[in-house]
Amino acid sequence: MIDLRSDTVTRPDEAMREAASTAAVGDDVYDEDPTVNELEARAAEAVGMQAALYVPTGTMGNQIAARTHADRGDELLCERDSHIYNWEVGGLAQLSGIQARPIDGGARGVITPAAVHDAYVERTDHRPGTGLLAIENTHNQKGGIAITADEIDAAAAAADEHDVPTHVDGARLFNASVALDTPASRLLDSADSVMFCLSKGLGAPVGSMLAGSEAFVERAHRNRKLFGGGMRQAGLVAAPGIEALDNVDRLAEDHANARTLAAGLDAIDGLVAAPPETNIVLVETDDPAEAFVEAIAAEGVRASAFGEHTVRLCTHWDVDESNIEQAIERVERALD
Amino acid sequence: MIDLRSDTVTRPDEAMREAASTAAVGDDVYDEDPTVNELEARAAEAVGMQAALYVPTGTMGNQIAARTHADRGDELLCERDSHIYNWEVGGLAQLSGIQARPIDGGARGVITPAAVHDAYVERTDHRPGTGLLAIENTHNQKGGIAITADEIDAAAAAADEHDVPTHVDGARLFNASVALDTPASRLLDSADSVMFCLSKGLGAPVGSMLAGSEAFVERAHRNRKLFGGGMRQAGLVAAPGIEALDNVDRLAEDHANARTLAAGLDAIDGLVAAPPETNIVLVETDDPAEAFVEAIAAEGVRASAFGEHTVRLCTHWDVDESNIEQAIERVERALD
Amino acid sequence: MIDLRSDTVTRPDEAMREAASTAAVGDDVYDEDPTVNELEARAAEAVGMQAALYVPTGTMGNQIAARTHADRGDELLCERDSHIYNWEVGGLAQLSGIQARPIDGGARGVITPAAVHDAYVERTDHRPGTGLLAIENTHNQKGGIAITADEIDAAAAAADEHDVPTHVDGARLFNASVALDTPASRLLDSADSVMFCLSKGLGAPVGSMLAGSEAFVERAHRNRKLFGGGMRQAGLVAAPGIEALDNVDRLAEDHANARTLAAGLDAIDGLVAAPPETNIVLVETDDPAEAFVEAIAAEGVRASAFGEHTVRLCTHWDVDESNIEQAIERVERALD
Amino acid sequence: MIDLRSDTVTRPDEAMREAASTAAVGDDVYDEDPTVNELEARAAEAVGMQAALYVPTGTMGNQIAARTHADRGDELLCERDSHIYNWEVGGLAQLSGIQARPIDGGARGVITPAAVHDAYVERTDHRPGTGLLAIENTHNQKGGIAITADEIDAAAAAADEHDVPTHVDGARLFNASVALDTPASRLLDSADSVMFCLSKGLGAPVGSMLAGSEAFVERAHRNRKLFGGGMRQAGLVAAPGIEALDNVDRLAEDHANARTLAAGLDAIDGLVAAPPETNIVLVETDDPAEAFVEAIAAEGVRASAFGEHTVRLCTHWDVDESNIEQAIERVERALD
Ligand SMILES: [Ca+2]
Ligand SMILES: [Ca+2]
Ligand SMILES: [Ca+2]
Ligand SMILES: [Ca+2]
Ligand SMILES: [Ca+2]
Ligand SMILES: [Ca+2]
Repeated sequence: MIDLRSDTVTRPDEAMREAASTAAVGDDVYDEDPTVNELEARAAEAVGMQAALYVPTGTMGNQIAARTHADRGDELLCERDSHIYNWEVGGLAQLSGIQARPIDGGARGVITPAAVHDAYVERTDHRPGTGLLAIENTHNQKGGIAITADEIDAAAAAADEHDVPTHVDGARLFNASVALDTPASRLLDSADSVMFCLSKGLGAPVGSMLAGSEAFVERAHRNRKLFGGGMRQAGLVAAPGIEALDNVDRLAEDHANARTLAAGLDAIDGLVAAPPETNIVLVETDDPAEAFVEAIAAEGVRASAFGEHTVRLCTHWDVDESNIEQAIERVERALD
Repeated sequence: MIDLRSDTVTRPDEAMREAASTAAVGDDVYDEDPTVNELEARAAEAVGMQAALYVPTGTMGNQIAARTHADRGDELLCERDSHIYNWEVGGLAQLSGIQARPIDGGARGVITPAAVHDAYVERTDHRPGTGLLAIENTHNQKGGIAITADEIDAAAAAADEHDVPTHVDGARLFNASVALDTPASRLLDSADSVMFCLSKGLGAPVGSMLAGSEAFVERAHRNRKLFGGGMRQAGLVAAPGIEALDNVDRLAEDHANARTLAAGLDAIDGLVAAPPETNIVLVETDDPAEAFVEAIAAEGVRASAFGEHTVRLCTHWDVDESNIEQAIERVERALD
Repeated sequence: MIDLRSDTVTRPDEAMREAASTAAVGDDVYDEDPTVNELEARAAEAVGMQAALYVPTGTMGNQIAARTHADRGDELLCERDSHIYNWEVGGLAQLSGIQARPIDGGARGVITPAAVHDAYVERTDHRPGTGLLAIENTHNQKGGIAITADEIDAAAAAADEHDVPTHVDGARLFNASVALDTPASRLLDSADSVMFCLSKGLGAPVGSMLAGSEAFVERAHRNRKLFGGGMRQAGLVAAPGIEALDNVDRLAEDHANARTLAAGLDAIDGLVAAPPETNIVLVETDDPAEAFVEAIAAEGVRASAFGEHTVRLCTHWDVDESNIEQAIERVERALD
Repeated sequence: MIDLRSDTVTRPDEAMREAASTAAVGDDVYDEDPTVNELEARAAEAVGMQAALYVPTGTMGNQIAARTHADRGDELLCERDSHIYNWEVGGLAQLSGIQARPIDGGARGVITPAAVHDAYVERTDHRPGTGLLAIENTHNQKGGIAITADEIDAAAAAADEHDVPTHVDGARLFNASVALDTPASRLLDSADSVMFCLSKGLGAPVGSMLAGSEAFVERAHRNRKLFGGGMRQAGLVAAPGIEALDNVDRLAEDHANARTLAAGLDAIDGLVAAPPETNIVLVETDDPAEAFVEAIAAEGVRASAFGEHTVRLCTHWDVDESNIEQAIERVERALD
């Protein structure tokens, strides 16, 4: 079975397992886990922020960021197909009383400065004010689109004119960084906080990082406790996360594989796939997406239905070039 | 001063004052206020629903409806310029943990069946499910647009295919009814609940009605208590509300006056005003809206800035035809 | 029928009805209702605060106060039998994310400084911090107990040592004032805000006042809008409220009547009633409270079951001395 | 340094580290992690429930349980010194709109049936109804008190009379089981759900289990996602958790060590320590607790201030009998 449903399915390698089994640990609730502290320091450095916090999931990282930046009754600006709005069980409203104001970012899911100015709401007696701008990079639902540093800077500058901070949902931040050949820290020049996942393309089994200023992380720490994310000897899972930080350059292979995959699928009758920017391939199918997903599963390829006629395939470190070629053949066979 | 800021500025007439001063009252928290009970019965009849509840404001009526229909963690579909989403201080998220999913209803603010199907979200482990469709009629921010029975039926039918109920924010429902020459009850054929205001065009000093099935109103009653809307000898303010229900036909005058006003303003250089469907006139101004509002105020006409170059003027029973003509002259003078 | 269920059942007198029918009104959402503004000014003066806000109900006034003083995730200290904790549908948690920390105030429901220090929680990463102390005066469920100025000062001073503000739920504040022969403003010397009802012993049909500093009332104004309490031509109901402010001295009669009633009932076999401090009489019944309430209703006296063997009777301006004597006779007959 | 602050400070042993490094893993969000699934099955069996869910922390487990059992606006009954009320950042109110109703459980923190009946609130238009009873076992703040099966049965039966389910916060459930020589499943005979920690006395680095009926766990699964607890290749941390389930019998040593420690400390002038029921020793100190904690830290013993004159010391598998004797000597020296 070639599993292309998501880059979250990757399994830890030997180095990560070795790291887990030998990690120095302590009680992170007392801030005494040396491995967590090392991971947090290294993660902060990797994204050019003052401090970072280890959180069990990307969803928790985003929700903590929203709650830490925005007060109850604030609005959050986000792209209408963004993860924080669509795939986090409505946590903004449910957990923090935050109203989302989605912006249509077009085909690439880019939030323009004009859209920020247009959607900005000033706090009055009748209106919740805008409290946060969230930018997803890469943009998952649009197909792993890598938002450029200039695009982020422009949107964040618009938000900043209204004193609104910017959070980057960088679940796949390093995919953007590699694809754009831009340091992650440069992508975040205008951002006030960022969440990135250790557990997607970077291959760690568990965990995400939330980074920002020291003051932000201190307040985020309390919200992590509130959401039930304050783990104890977390060093054991943080250790593979440190290893994962070394896997950034390897993402280029995933991107090359994705381009191969997209080209191969696009050549098949009944399928259209645009060249991907990173590791996510969106395929338009003549058949209903669910039927297509079932058909290729029968041939040993797993993918995710993403719309009525849209299917997502992700490349990741558990699939290599030859797997990709096999996958294309199997899809071809499935559609015969 | 000719006050066209809103139809909420109307003052009660003698009949209403008389009704207030002679109303039989009791404790409505014990459901013993005969005047409130009469108002509730008459209001339910006026909109063709089983039961109705007297609430202090339209905002409370809408927020109670949302909370009564939708569970925490549900989504609410609404037009992106709707009152419930934009002008109720984010209450959906703050008070009830409901996430709004705004739909772009175009120039008239009409939610199409296709838009409902597209925006509908099935409840899964990752997604809040859609719990309610809200339709505003007339649509205030679009300029008092009267949504037709067929348009409501179509959207509600689409929602119903997904077992999603429909609430009508009918703050100005009777303006739509009069403009379309359609009984209010017909406009609500497919609706599960409706809120309408006694205090706008109908002229009552205070209060709105929330109507629906008996079961709905029973649960709404509890949420009214929660929001602090359970008043005592409310009959004193409910009595003018009963009078207000007789003022429906009079709304035709407001609409005629609005047409006169729009035509008169449109004829002025630097102003564009489309013919209004009901009692709300939106004027596009060459000057910034705020400056225009100040300028005409100096001449004795009050209006509301509604966008950077959009100004709203409402007709209502405190202004008659001659006031409208004066208003046009004064605006003309202000722009000279 | 002699209705002693509550002092909320009082009906407005001629002066109030006259006031309603002649009130100057305007749109209070624009802050242009002269009658509301007069009521707010007079109410602020009556309690010695800078400013006041007219709200439709006491519940809304308390909930606005809690939300305005305390941040989400704060705790509120209150007496365990207090109204804000027990009878407001859990609004603290539901509407504002505030956790209540109830204090056992003993037979009179008095919160001592020691209890405040003991219950105070410092905000840490694991604990919500104490954000507000609420004191109910008179204390309804304890039987209309009048908390003295010294008692309030002592508790508020303890709270103040921890920088915790004090709100007084003074639904029946003026009953306390009259019973203690202490000006309301003196009772509030240490309070940061107060809610008092126009619609209980003072006899107005609808409404309560929330008073505090100008900054507090300004923020409370926004929360009133959020909760749906921003009414339009509210002057019509505010006018009887102004009349109601003149009814403070009359409360002494209610208190005298309550003492007569308690003495009369206590003399009856199977009933125990302590001398009341204000207008609320609690009677311990040998029979189950519900059965007792039914039995006396059959004889034409209405009361409220308040516990398994506790019944509450309230005196108010719709019952005079002769009614009280009749009521005692009827209860006696009912128990024969 | 002999660290007796908490049993959360234990470090994983070789077997756990080995398990982590060799665990079969999969994506638990897709429910495909075989190690997590094995842990969940074994945990369910260990507590005699149908199903179980792996959660990152005990706090999240408790908060999920509360939200899954109780609707917004429900009340939760708990002991006034319980963890769920005091140490989870007010999550009940903040995350789920649940109002806590704390019960004074006396010296041992036992909730009696009478207390349940007394505190039970029937849902009305004015009152949130009771939605859940939570019992903490062992009761941490009372000093590791082991609540007996009969005590739990009695309280749960009282709750059940009102159709209120019972959740057991069993962060240290197996300490109670061992101390009482009662199977954990017997302790839970009347419980509808239980949370227990793998990471305290059982020694796992990370994680807790939430168990209940299959229907309960299915709904809990969604709330885990909402709170951000849905981890990916969680098998790597779940594997040590499976090992931890074998450590139940070992808790007897911790209890013996705690008795030795308490006796030794109680013999010291200025200290009073009652014989502990499990692994938690509470010491009353003449000196302020903070000063005492500092003084013994200087001698190499760490403990937690737990009140103004109360200090908590926990035994766990990183301290053996000789450490305990050393600890007593060091405390003696510190107080000289
Ligand atoms: Ca740390
Ligand atoms: Ca093709
Ligand atoms: Ca009624
Ligand atoms: Ca005012
Ligand atoms: Ca007696
Ligand atoms: Ca599972």
